[in-house]
Amino acid sequence: MYNILYSQGGVCASEGFFADGVSAGLKKEGAKDMAFIYSEDECEVASVFTTNKMYAAPIKHFRLMGEFKTNFVLINSKNANAMTGKAGVEDINEVLSNCQSGVKNPIMSSTGVIGVRLPKAKIIEGMKLFDLTKRDSASASKAIMTTDTFAKEVAFKVALDDGSSFNIGAIAKGAGMINPAMATMLCFITTDAKVSKSEMQELLDDVVKTTFNAISVDGDTSTNDTVLVLSNGRSGAYEREAFKEALFKVMHFLALEMVRDGEGATKLVTYKVTGAKDDAEAEIAAKALSDSLLVKTALFGEDPNWGRIASTVGASGVEAYEEKLKISFDNFCVYDRGEILFDAEMEKKCAVVMQHKKFTISCDLGIGEGSFKAYGCDLGHEYVKINADYRT
Amino acid sequence: MYNILYSQGGVCASEGFFADGVSAGLKKEGAKDMAFIYSEDECEVASVFTTNKMYAAPIKHFRLMGEFKTNFVLINSKNANAMTGKAGVEDINEVLSNCQSGVKNPIMSSTGVIGVRLPKAKIIEGMKLFDLTKRDSASASKAIMTTDTFAKEVAFKVALDDGSSFNIGAIAKGAGMINPAMATMLCFITTDAKVSKSEMQELLDDVVKTTFNAISVDGDTSTNDTVLVLSNGRSGAYEREAFKEALFKVMHFLALEMVRDGEGATKLVTYKVTGAKDDAEAEIAAKALSDSLLVKTALFGEDPNWGRIASTVGASGVEAYEEKLKISFDNFCVYDRGEILFDAEMEKKCAVVMQHKKFTISCDLGIGEGSFKAYGCDLGHEYVKINADYRT
Repeated sequence: MYNILYSQGGVCASEGFFADGVSAGLKKEGAKDMAFIYSEDECEVASVFTTNKMYAAPIKHFRLMGEFKTNFVLINSKNANAMTGKAGVEDINEVLSNCQSGVKNPIMSSTGVIGVRLPKAKIIEGMKLFDLTKRDSASASKAIMTTDTFAKEVAFKVALDDGSSFNIGAIAKGAGMINPAMATMLCFITTDAKVSKSEMQELLDDVVKTTFNAISVDGDTSTNDTVLVLSNGRSGAYEREAFKEALFKVMHFLALEMVRDGEGATKLVTYKVTGAKDDAEAEIAAKALSDSLLVKTALFGEDPNWGRIASTVGASGVEAYEEKLKISFDNFCVYDRGEILFDAEMEKKCAVVMQHKKFTISCDLGIGEGSFKAYGCDLGHEYVKINADYRT
Repeated sequence: MYNILYSQGGVCASEGFFADGVSAGLKKEGAKDMAFIYSEDECEVASVFTTNKMYAAPIKHFRLMGEFKTNFVLINSKNANAMTGKAGVEDINEVLSNCQSGVKNPIMSSTGVIGVRLPKAKIIEGMKLFDLTKRDSASASKAIMTTDTFAKEVAFKVALDDGSSFNIGAIAKGAGMINPAMATMLCFITTDAKVSKSEMQELLDDVVKTTFNAISVDGDTSTNDTVLVLSNGRSGAYEREAFKEALFKVMHFLALEMVRDGEGATKLVTYKVTGAKDDAEAEIAAKALSDSLLVKTALFGEDPNWGRIASTVGASGVEAYEEKLKISFDNFCVYDRGEILFDAEMEKKCAVVMQHKKFTISCDLGIGEGSFKAYGCDLGHEYVKINADYRT
């Protein structure tokens, strides 16, 4: 057995890790826009990147490095370095050649506007402000924000039965474009657990399915989505199940924080689909619900429009039958296998549920054992406002 | 050869067809909410319905009728008669048993709120107001509107070389939920061409792909989508190619009218994808663009954010390469196979394009010969407003 306890310090909660955020003049008014994560020891790296075919230069650069250990991640906001071709990768090489001594195989991660060359001079100037002895994860988490309204970090200490322990911590940015198949989201996880690269990659691939790949803000998938896990093994401690659960806790927490902070979002909704033919069909239906514009606008209007839920499940392409379907808002069942339970009294109850900041919409398809939980938010005027003039 | 000429009269342009709209008190303030289309002669019917698994009672009723000819279509707005189970079909039978004498195998079509039983008494009362000698297609087109801001009808006269001619006309309603795979759209087409049922169905299936199935307002697919073609053969005239082209003209015109009238839409955008591996991949990419929330909000903001176009194509899953892609706004190429042509001057030119009510965004994938045109609109505050409180 093991114990997983909340702790402080984000990516710096793990022994031997350092981080900070600085202002390089990429954002307006001196806001922090560049961050680093540094480890005294070289780290094994596990990664998941966007499935977008137009993946950005930092991802190309990472892939070109082949097998490697690193102890340094440079992150910038305001510029995605995407659609910038070979020049974009060369820009990264040039920037990273300016790293301080002690840095080994540095990597880069970017978020921001697509199709504009990296402002190299500013970034290289900014790197001079990095102090590799700083442990300011909070500053790093602020520097990587784009349309996020709050910074996102989390950490856990995992105590194993033999008295040993390890740490895992992370920073992330989300908002906008967050989509089931990864989106403009960056997440950097550090750990001092003594985990092998292959096992870390295997667990990351598994956990991402029910966390970052289960959330949606607007159904679009970005060119830059990145999850990195860096392990320096400093603690000497490791236990597979404990590590997996801690990794899930980190990623699940940050995934939900991203939805909660979706552009203009006011509600965090769990779409729980059960009784599907299999898990894959449950996932399709749950993600169709979290992506549906009609459902999202009904959420914003706090309108328990269960007909749109039924219609969206029906349109998702999965096996479903009007006479087997059950739909509930939290614990209130509004439609039960052919019977409409949505009278005036029920409508009032459901309207109250929808006024909450967090609630669950459940659909039981009544066919098999497949289940999946997706997470989404509403879509309101703020989303339109943010995205109609994002570049300005 | 043949000549296709615009004409007047919508569904009543075809010989022997009658139509009207009345108010049965389903909508507020005496607005028209029920319509009929009647033919003196029985008609062959071709049909395309929604792919939504939760298809509404009128579609179930139609399918239960098997092979039949009809001379009467009853249409109501405000209530979709969807998710109403067997009772919904029984309601239709009861309503249609009140048709006037001379009506054979009547069918019904509905649009409106999902999950509420049909207000039978009001509808049966409303049917008493029908005057089967009326030829008021415009009234019928008004009665079937939901969130549409204007009524939609069109008609053509087709003159064949041998001096014979036939007519084709239609009414339609769209707005909201309009999606590539059909959506809450109803379209009723009449013709006096002497076309066989099987050929009419074959041509309808073909033409729907590049018209109603190529448009998108919000990516959702409704429970009630219906396209019906009724032919009474009254003209005695027919020529396959002429009929197909006229059918295309009718459906293409109405499809674009639906996009133009998308909820809160201010722009009609053609997404022209060429150079894809095949037509199927071109269709996937074109529809991904017309469905993308980020693209739609950029349109609303009149922001030539070509990075979102590239990212959306990349995320659509089709074969695509950064170094082979070309993106243009009307005739202005902003990205050409690795070269970013989007300087300040180009941005100004593209911003002007985007201020137009109609323009084309082109993506050449530079791989093969596949092409497809999809049609979409922007998404603004009005869409959110309409859909946040649709039921109230």
